[in-house]
Amino acid sequence: MNKEKKSPDIKIFALNSNRSLAEEIAEEVGVALGQADITTFEDGEIRINIEESIRGDDVYIIQSTNDPSNDYIMEALIMIDALKRASARTINVVMPYYGYARQDRKPGPREAITAKVVANMLTIAGATRIVTMDLHAPQIQGFFDIPVDHLSATAILVNYFIDHKFGGDGTVVVSPDHAGVSRAREMAELLDSRLAIIDKRAADEEVEEELNLVGDVDGCTCILFDDIMDTARTVTKACAMLKESGAKDVYVCVTHPVLSGKAIDRINASGIKKVVVTNTIDIKEKADCPFIEVISIAPIIGDAIKRIQGHRSIKPLFDKDYVDRLIH
Amino acid sequence: MNKEKKSPDIKIFALNSNRSLAEEIAEEVGVALGQADITTFEDGEIRINIEESIRGDDVYIIQSTNDPSNDYIMEALIMIDALKRASARTINVVMPYYGYARQDRKPGPREAITAKVVANMLTIAGATRIVTMDLHAPQIQGFFDIPVDHLSATAILVNYFIDHKFGGDGTVVVSPDHAGVSRAREMAELLDSRLAIIDKRAADEEVEEELNLVGDVDGCTCILFDDIMDTARTVTKACAMLKESGAKDVYVCVTHPVLSGKAIDRINASGIKKVVVTNTIDIKEKADCPFIEVISIAPIIGDAIKRIQGHRSIKPLFDKDYVDRLIH
Amino acid sequence: MNKEKKSPDIKIFALNSNRSLAEEIAEEVGVALGQADITTFEDGEIRINIEESIRGDDVYIIQSTNDPSNDYIMEALIMIDALKRASARTINVVMPYYGYARQDRKPGPREAITAKVVANMLTIAGATRIVTMDLHAPQIQGFFDIPVDHLSATAILVNYFIDHKFGGDGTVVVSPDHAGVSRAREMAELLDSRLAIIDKRAADEEVEEELNLVGDVDGCTCILFDDIMDTARTVTKACAMLKESGAKDVYVCVTHPVLSGKAIDRINASGIKKVVVTNTIDIKEKADCPFIEVISIAPIIGDAIKRIQGHRSIKPLFDKDYVDRLIH
Amino acid sequence: MNKEKKSPDIKIFALNSNRSLAEEIAEEVGVALGQADITTFEDGEIRINIEESIRGDDVYIIQSTNDPSNDYIMEALIMIDALKRASARTINVVMPYYGYARQDRKPGPREAITAKVVANMLTIAGATRIVTMDLHAPQIQGFFDIPVDHLSATAILVNYFIDHKFGGDGTVVVSPDHAGVSRAREMAELLDSRLAIIDKRAADEEVEEELNLVGDVDGCTCILFDDIMDTARTVTKACAMLKESGAKDVYVCVTHPVLSGKAIDRINASGIKKVVVTNTIDIKEKADCPFIEVISIAPIIGDAIKRIQGHRSIKPLFDKDYVDRLIH
Amino acid sequence: MNKEKKSPDIKIFALNSNRSLAEEIAEEVGVALGQADITTFEDGEIRINIEESIRGDDVYIIQSTNDPSNDYIMEALIMIDALKRASARTINVVMPYYGYARQDRKPGPREAITAKVVANMLTIAGATRIVTMDLHAPQIQGFFDIPVDHLSATAILVNYFIDHKFGGDGTVVVSPDHAGVSRAREMAELLDSRLAIIDKRAADEEVEEELNLVGDVDGCTCILFDDIMDTARTVTKACAMLKESGAKDVYVCVTHPVLSGKAIDRINASGIKKVVVTNTIDIKEKADCPFIEVISIAPIIGDAIKRIQGHRSIKPLFDKDYVDRLIH
Amino acid sequence: MNKEKKSPDIKIFALNSNRSLAEEIAEEVGVALGQADITTFEDGEIRINIEESIRGDDVYIIQSTNDPSNDYIMEALIMIDALKRASARTINVVMPYYGYARQDRKPGPREAITAKVVANMLTIAGATRIVTMDLHAPQIQGFFDIPVDHLSATAILVNYFIDHKFGGDGTVVVSPDHAGVSRAREMAELLDSRLAIIDKRAADEEVEEELNLVGDVDGCTCILFDDIMDTARTVTKACAMLKESGAKDVYVCVTHPVLSGKAIDRINASGIKKVVVTNTIDIKEKADCPFIEVISIAPIIGDAIKRIQGHRSIKPLFDKDYVDRLIH
Repeated sequence: MNKEKKSPDIKIFALNSNRSLAEEIAEEVGVALGQADITTFEDGEIRINIEESIRGDDVYIIQSTNDPSNDYIMEALIMIDALKRASARTINVVMPYYGYARQDRKPGPREAITAKVVANMLTIAGATRIVTMDLHAPQIQGFFDIPVDHLSATAILVNYFIDHKFGGDGTVVVSPDHAGVSRAREMAELLDSRLAIIDKRAADEEVEEELNLVGDVDGCTCILFDDIMDTARTVTKACAMLKESGAKDVYVCVTHPVLSGKAIDRINASGIKKVVVTNTIDIKEKADCPFIEVISIAPIIGDAIKRIQGHRSIKPLFDKDYVDRLIH
Repeated sequence: MNKEKKSPDIKIFALNSNRSLAEEIAEEVGVALGQADITTFEDGEIRINIEESIRGDDVYIIQSTNDPSNDYIMEALIMIDALKRASARTINVVMPYYGYARQDRKPGPREAITAKVVANMLTIAGATRIVTMDLHAPQIQGFFDIPVDHLSATAILVNYFIDHKFGGDGTVVVSPDHAGVSRAREMAELLDSRLAIIDKRAADEEVEEELNLVGDVDGCTCILFDDIMDTARTVTKACAMLKESGAKDVYVCVTHPVLSGKAIDRINASGIKKVVVTNTIDIKEKADCPFIEVISIAPIIGDAIKRIQGHRSIKPLFDKDYVDRLIH
Repeated sequence: MNKEKKSPDIKIFALNSNRSLAEEIAEEVGVALGQADITTFEDGEIRINIEESIRGDDVYIIQSTNDPSNDYIMEALIMIDALKRASARTINVVMPYYGYARQDRKPGPREAITAKVVANMLTIAGATRIVTMDLHAPQIQGFFDIPVDHLSATAILVNYFIDHKFGGDGTVVVSPDHAGVSRAREMAELLDSRLAIIDKRAADEEVEEELNLVGDVDGCTCILFDDIMDTARTVTKACAMLKESGAKDVYVCVTHPVLSGKAIDRINASGIKKVVVTNTIDIKEKADCPFIEVISIAPIIGDAIKRIQGHRSIKPLFDKDYVDRLIH
Repeated sequence: MNKEKKSPDIKIFALNSNRSLAEEIAEEVGVALGQADITTFEDGEIRINIEESIRGDDVYIIQSTNDPSNDYIMEALIMIDALKRASARTINVVMPYYGYARQDRKPGPREAITAKVVANMLTIAGATRIVTMDLHAPQIQGFFDIPVDHLSATAILVNYFIDHKFGGDGTVVVSPDHAGVSRAREMAELLDSRLAIIDKRAADEEVEEELNLVGDVDGCTCILFDDIMDTARTVTKACAMLKESGAKDVYVCVTHPVLSGKAIDRINASGIKKVVVTNTIDIKEKADCPFIEVISIAPIIGDAIKRIQGHRSIKPLFDKDYVDRLIH
Repeated sequence: MNKEKKSPDIKIFALNSNRSLAEEIAEEVGVALGQADITTFEDGEIRINIEESIRGDDVYIIQSTNDPSNDYIMEALIMIDALKRASARTINVVMPYYGYARQDRKPGPREAITAKVVANMLTIAGATRIVTMDLHAPQIQGFFDIPVDHLSATAILVNYFIDHKFGGDGTVVVSPDHAGVSRAREMAELLDSRLAIIDKRAADEEVEEELNLVGDVDGCTCILFDDIMDTARTVTKACAMLKESGAKDVYVCVTHPVLSGKAIDRINASGIKKVVVTNTIDIKEKADCPFIEVISIAPIIGDAIKRIQGHRSIKPLFDKDYVDRLIH
Repeated sequence: MNKEKKSPDIKIFALNSNRSLAEEIAEEVGVALGQADITTFEDGEIRINIEESIRGDDVYIIQSTNDPSNDYIMEALIMIDALKRASARTINVVMPYYGYARQDRKPGPREAITAKVVANMLTIAGATRIVTMDLHAPQIQGFFDIPVDHLSATAILVNYFIDHKFGGDGTVVVSPDHAGVSRAREMAELLDSRLAIIDKRAADEEVEEELNLVGDVDGCTCILFDDIMDTARTVTKACAMLKESGAKDVYVCVTHPVLSGKAIDRINASGIKKVVVTNTIDIKEKADCPFIEVISIAPIIGDAIKRIQGHRSIKPLFDKDYVDRLIH
């Protein structure tokens, strides 16, 4: 009787946040995207109908939770519930950009830790694994009691700059604040370059935010390296300050291009040479901005999925040379 | 030392879905609305800051989850988490309209039961009680393992019709489908009127939805009674059919005025005398429609909160005469 | 070392409620029933001893929870616990008749939702899947957060009537109340027949239950179609009323033959031609009643188990033609 | 507004297992028994309707789980669910006799630990405290993660024997097996008497159970002291053996009179002077047996409830003298 | 793509409590011990670094929780968490000696049930199975809701005595107290010898502990058989008493050699011929004591692991003859 | 009957880590320390016996989890379990120093998040609230789903420096690394002083750790401000570097004086003027070091407990002036 038993398949489904990335990932993995119909009713409620059997399969959902984050979170939860009730073997939520990650602690006395709320929701809905990238705080991994594969875009971004002949003495990697120093230091080492840090004193009602530079950028090409670029307010100020400090050119490099509000306007007016971002978030028509360059992280996520399925370590994906071979 | 101990207060907070109802409820209860600041960032993320201490208090959140339901659900979850971490004694979620209630079972082989997803979310976030009204299916109470106070708007709606001299032989209460018969029968009994039922055969690709009337409405005033009015498509068809069957006037009465899409246009064109709804959902400018009459359920919810706080039974709230005294 | 590894077997165990159905199912699946010894001590306590290793196996327990429901529920829970502690790979509870299903909501202010209590018990004991049939309310699926395969006996029952040359213009499918209309409509469509509905006004202390017929049955053969037949009180009244309305013959068709109290006496006296039931419940000597015809649902459940084990969709089991081939 | 707040009441409800004990307890506590209607339908399902508001109250359910244990367990679970949903403040399950307690470990390779199944059920249903007496194994307390108040009937039983002038040199307390030695030793000390132990070698298929006496009973009055008396098979054998060993009179003393099967016949034929039991189990007409003397544990449980409510230690209830004053 | 899939490996890791036993077990199973680095920082905190991929593997951790028990428990929990986050397929905790097992019930009114605390910790950390041996109370199995494979050293210890020509009439197995009688009786039967019991009256402030012998040991070789030997205080007293009662030689046999405090001094001074223990606990240099003989339980645990992996029953491991073949 | 009801008391218990702090806190709160006996057996197991009734009380346990952290964690868990089983109303764990806080994320591919393991343990054992201070990463609050009151020692430490006439232009607050900048900036603002940052490049096998100073300390008094001082290795290096950079005097200020290994020797040899620490950790005889000054945080924790009990906000405890009044 067991002869009829189908061995577990891998199924990859795109939800609405980033269908193009999902397609690339599916191609990397070598499967067709699964068929699921997501309807939004006239009253705003979402209904998901999975159109192929996934019984006993290892299912991967590709969904970032950028704007509209609440809708994308809810889509993920509804999809997870549907998969659980339809007897998926494992439910792997690939969330290249984990929204609400900046609400990871209580900043004031009576505030929520929304990044934990989201973690609890995903878990109670039935997710069995999270695959994510460059979390705003790595402690968010501890918000989960299910395995989290925390990937990094650094290796793929470094390769971009190496391919474009950056690195060495003429390049300085700049951390836009103290929180990002270790990330920037890692890139500086991979590029064999120096590091500079922007010392940002928080603004209050009376005093404006004040930026000081630690390190020497005179005559150098700067790479401002961060995890998230949201309104571009700080980054464009930092660019101006770097220019005043003698920087030849300023490049910005971030994993997650949130680009909300007037971000594009600010970039256009900033004199930044290039904003190198990944496609963890689908920036749609903003990609037409001449200063923006989008690097796909599909090879990393695709390889991660293959490694997870093959029960092999994902450690090589943090290695510049392995990633170099992967993408060329 | 215990002398300094503040006894538990009741605090009522409005979230964004229905602030005017919250204000009415607070007034009924006799407290001022709590201060909480809800910010929506440019990237769509919500942040809630509760601006007064709620340590050891019994907190009531007033939030329906109509369109945009995902945002309103997320607001509720973030608020609950903030209250939990800020040491509220109890967290009572008053959800006059429970969105996603129509997704209460698996209609197809691989679909979610989203009403259960929402129930699980509310519970895991930390809600200790749900207060809701006229759930689409009463079984949704069983989706929770925390107490659910399930109120009904029937008594208050019946009083409207009694006040307007409906009832007796000249009135017929009409159920728009088989699922709503027991609700309609209850109103018919309270009005001392007869009952009619619309027998609706589900449409498919070839055949149009077909409506048959069971019962006699000739020369009578009809009250079409239902829980939810969404796109108004079915209700306006039903109205036409009742008119053809000899109905003198057609009134529509529903608890939850979802009114999505072209609902208002359809109502305007329908010949319906009046659509009597409650304010479980804030219909905003749609209330200007001359055919719509909004009845406030604040007296019921306010009294329910007082009863819950006073540890007294909420049973009288289902009694027409008690509710009559409450609202007059 | 892994060579010694036994691949997961499927094991099917009968508890006490319906051993003959379990045997039929095992035969359909092509395995022998597992050996388990169920002892009831003199003080009423149950002890279960599984007499063969089930380590790493996929185990199916066949148990309906009809009268004595509490004993049968407890048997199921004890068996699940034993299987969990004995390292079963999966524990699949096949509950063709889910007792307490009619207690699926709070009918009064201080009542239990016992169908949810049972769902929580099965889950906490360690069940990993429920397979059940024609739940009284489909919302009960949402009482579980584990997969529920909700089967239907409609296809197999329709085939019975087709085999016996029912259908078409001469047959009318009758729903005994408003709650069952959609189920009856489905059968009517499959038989290419018309639908009638009995409009039942609930009895109270003064007024007797009153039945009205919606639809025309004059000169036709009626099939009264419902999910549960308990005391047969309502059904036999309905039969009398249909006869008065001109029905030629009345057949009754239900999935779950609870048949408690004087049900058999009532059937015998009713003039019903045939009561067609399934064997979700083992009616034992009541099957000798000349008016009762028992159709086995073993082919459906057996095929469902094979599909679950084979990770194939159970959707075909809702298809009349597939089921036709399955049983012939 | 808070003035209307009712302070938490104590409510005591009897389920079906032991209504007379519940009445005695309520009297000790000084409250009237709560009104709850327990219906058993013709198909064996139970429905419970609590007929008075218990919102915010501390509720005590009195229910032993003797034969029919499964029904009594289910009654308790349904009642707990109803109380939870009706907003009881605390749900205290007073289970003087905890059925299935002898299934507290895996005796064979694939058996359940049913005492743990029951513990999990009570907890998941919503019990917040268990009050029980003379558990077969004290380790069962660890099956719960909610507070368990584990009472003892020893003090009250000792007082019976003291009142009847037992104790000192002429009395020997006999433990019927090795498991009960510490319990018997405690009573012997309180009576200032000696201890004897029956060394029982388990029977197997070929060899009959063999009893040896450790200690001297010649010319003495023996009190055979145990927690449970089930079929009375062992105890009556032990009595015969004690007589052969020279015992003058044999009394039996047990907390829980299960008395299943032919227990009464065996007692009648045994020559035992008196079987002193408590009313943890309602033995109904078996109490008419001239050899049985029932001692009420209502004073102990009543006082325990008052202490629990008053947040005072229950330790005095283990003290012979305190209990002496309590009952006289 | 699935071709790359590595089938689940078995990995065995030693933590710090008993590395030599772990090595023996790994050899029995036929795998190399996994590489994990356990660092204790200068401030006493432990950090564990698993140095090889265990994705999708079945992992066995070998760790007893003897002195320092808190450190060994914490090591186990940290390791389990690391394995869970690193996507192990199953996490099997082999705990040959389960520390805190004697705190298995509330001895006084306000004490912890620490054996349950430990069980809850292991479960919440992510253990999926416990393998343990000769638990102080078998009820501890019920503290878990995950499978517990409870092994016994009796068969292997009996084989030692058979190999050394013990057994028959000249040997008496002695239980050091009433709690251990059934364990001793089992060994006596396997050796075809008689049983004696030491009747120990608990000491109090005034009276010293008093030991009485039940059974005849005159001229015989005694085997004092127990589960744990802690300070050796009781056992050496028992030895003296047996000698006074005419015992020729006294052997002690225990599964778990805790041997704390002055245990070795007491043994050296006691006149005990041999203390036969297993290596569930690594007694290190205490093994040099000339009176101590250590029997390895690695064959039993190794075979158990192979059987668990192979989904075969562990029942044969309780059979003297099977174990005899296993170790010779 | 309710008259006998004792209103909830507050009980404060010291475990072994920091009994002197607990005494100070109890004095601040105005209650006597509760009586609990903590025994460590010869085999290393801990047993706790609470010697007074705590039924219905609000209990606070004072326990830091410094070295030996595993023992202190286990003490806390055993105490929590005992309190839960003894019916405490709330169990508040005051953990001034939260050990394992530096293991708050996965640093390598297969490591544990031990700070989360500890959080899960405390929660599952039954803690209902955590009160802690200056967590290494504030995200650890999100590891809990129970309320965490996260206090800060900054206000009390600032007051020390103000009392000693520090502050203004002549003082520079120095952050020893980038992670601590916002904490140092806060102190600098309160002292009306400037900020400097030490830019530490992580050492690897070949290159030694390299420290650079950002900001000017020439001729100034430096306050090196950090959360934890462990081996003092980095801090003493930083001191040397500050001196080389022209600092007049160097003070060190940390909340948690772990002071492991050779910390005291390094401090003695460092030329640091004073190491100002709090008593979150009991440093015992290390307090005799002439360079160490211990500031008690008992006023803060005592006031926090009073505020928690009184349901009043703890926000004032972050205010320098409020704390100033509190301690003077």
